Amino acid sequence: MKIGNKHYRSIWVNPANPLEIQAIDQRFLPHEFYVRDLKHPDDFVHAIKDMLVRGAPLIGITAAYGLYSALLHSTAHNADDNLKKAHDKLLATRPTASNLKWALAKQMHAINAGKNLGEKIKLALENANHLADEDVKACKQIGKYGLPLIEGISKKKNGAPVNILTHCNAGWLATVDYGTATAPIYLAHDAGVNVHVWVDETRPRNQGASITAFELGKHGVPHTVIVDNAGGHLMQRGMVDLCIVGTDRTLASGDVCNKIGTYLKALAAHDNKIPFYVALPSSSIDWETKDASAIPIEERNENEVKHVHGFDGKKIASVLVTPSHSKVSNYGFDITPARLITGLITERGICKPDRKELSLMFYE
Amino acid sequence: MKIGNKHYRSIWVNPANPLEIQAIDQRFLPHEFYVRDLKHPDDFVHAIKDMLVRGAPLIGITAAYGLYSALLHSTAHNADDNLKKAHDKLLATRPTASNLKWALAKQMHAINAGKNLGEKIKLALENANHLADEDVKACKQIGKYGLPLIEGISKKKNGAPVNILTHCNAGWLATVDYGTATAPIYLAHDAGVNVHVWVDETRPRNQGASITAFELGKHGVPHTVIVDNAGGHLMQRGMVDLCIVGTDRTLASGDVCNKIGTYLKALAAHDNKIPFYVALPSSSIDWETKDASAIPIEERNENEVKHVHGFDGKKIASVLVTPSHSKVSNYGFDITPARLITGLITERGICKPDRKELSLMFYE
Repeated sequence: MKIGNKHYRSIWVNPANPLEIQAIDQRFLPHEFYVRDLKHPDDFVHAIKDMLVRGAPLIGITAAYGLYSALLHSTAHNADDNLKKAHDKLLATRPTASNLKWALAKQMHAINAGKNLGEKIKLALENANHLADEDVKACKQIGKYGLPLIEGISKKKNGAPVNILTHCNAGWLATVDYGTATAPIYLAHDAGVNVHVWVDETRPRNQGASITAFELGKHGVPHTVIVDNAGGHLMQRGMVDLCIVGTDRTLASGDVCNKIGTYLKALAAHDNKIPFYVALPSSSIDWETKDASAIPIEERNENEVKHVHGFDGKKIASVLVTPSHSKVSNYGFDITPARLITGLITERGICKPDRKELSLMFYE
Repeated sequence: MKIGNKHYRSIWVNPANPLEIQAIDQRFLPHEFYVRDLKHPDDFVHAIKDMLVRGAPLIGITAAYGLYSALLHSTAHNADDNLKKAHDKLLATRPTASNLKWALAKQMHAINAGKNLGEKIKLALENANHLADEDVKACKQIGKYGLPLIEGISKKKNGAPVNILTHCNAGWLATVDYGTATAPIYLAHDAGVNVHVWVDETRPRNQGASITAFELGKHGVPHTVIVDNAGGHLMQRGMVDLCIVGTDRTLASGDVCNKIGTYLKALAAHDNKIPFYVALPSSSIDWETKDASAIPIEERNENEVKHVHGFDGKKIASVLVTPSHSKVSNYGFDITPARLITGLITERGICKPDRKELSLMFYE
């Protein structure tokens, strides 16, 4: 999508040096925009762990490039060992999103087809690029399948703005391009449909207020930032037509694990009969886990709750918002049960959030 | 309640000078603790408008003292005029809470019984003190009636901590003492019951993270601050036994207007079969408004959402958390329908949130 007049992806191979990967550093958005060079395998681990890159699909792609980097820093003697170590380090960075495991498995499989280090390196780069391109394609397809939902509401409202609520950032910066939840929104906007997005701030890390608002604004999509508490009220007063969120892991049962607070918005949408859709590439589907309560819910550092980061007029700074001695709890995700979800928007079309429909759509 | 070892109320007559009122300045909590002198009628208007004091019951008491101050600054000639002007200014400070209107009416009625300025001043002071004492008494009664709910859960859990979730600040700093939602909690804690409070941060102004966490901490009540997004997840995982919140206005129908986000927690409590109680003095009941959608919902300044205030290590500072050009919306309250509420804890006992039970309890 666009930043200013320039088209960007969230991660790419340095055109001047294919041994380096470049990524937008998302930690200082919307206030400061940096592109970082990822040169060493540990750079990729840190990029994911420190949330320089975040968003389930982008985490997967970054990890795939991380394995490529591990091979670049290997000799024929230690390549297998290095690869295994890098794989395990990358897999351990974030526990909840299933794309990470998926992308690492795909990349290991591709690499293993190489007969020697040179071939493995070549295959690793090709396959990481392929996974990135496939992610873009999947997001674009999600957009294509979600677009008629927005067009339909627009028609019913005679062209008045279609108000879409989203939580966290499932935008192009959470993927390689287009985004998942935002793909239908970008496609609608680009097609001239009158859309307006309610952007949940998404405490504690404020990915909505910072990243979603940033990317929508830079692409020119009308939006309004709200605190996470506000969505229910807006729905009660008829100010939301549609909810679309992303997911870090969707079970075959249709239960959706996504950023903490998603469940509350799904409850409110259900209570107010507002359609609630989850947009996802099939790489986010966890076909194995049976029970949502078995999904490990990441508990993050208490400082994310105690300190809020932002721009103090001169630089990025943080302020303490709780008593310094108060205890804090910081779960990163929650589970939205399938019964609250209107449909899943995938790269193959929209389906009901249940095992039967999902299995038919992804029969292989 | 206690701050350190000293007992405080949130507002009181300066013992050294009964022409002055003193109040805790809540804008810099939990980081800095100031007591302010309110000397001029406009000081009271600003105290409410700028949220030096906040919380529906405390706003009412502050306004009552404001009318006293207006008379102190009057002559026999302009007293009626000044009183009328001060009344109108005070009434216009905040639109949603019904205690403000209630306390101003009570105070005007008391003052009007005076035959001359001297008598009116005397009556104004006496009645404001009386309203403050009555508020304390009502809160203590709320505590008394709410206590068995907590004791009952404690018994069922064999003394394991009773986990109570609250939203915003309906604590002693929102009233004169004890608080509404917190009164049963303080009484339980003081009686040796093992309680633990989940404190919703309560964006945008963070009254939970700042004020509720401050007052619970200072009184020694175990608590954990969470972001507003987290409560649903905690309820799903069995980590919440009971919700108690306050209210800015409760209709005779049982619909409750309270800080934005309350509705979302009530939905989650209902979905997880967790009791959800609203604690209120009868001064918060609006007997006239029939339809909750007719309650004016205050829209506050967008800067409350865009900028987060806190302690930067040296001083209170604020940081911008959204793109500077993004639009923002900032509704202050939402409506929780009676169907989601288990019961109302009032100074006369607990009743179902409906017109019949409320009318029987407050028959006059």
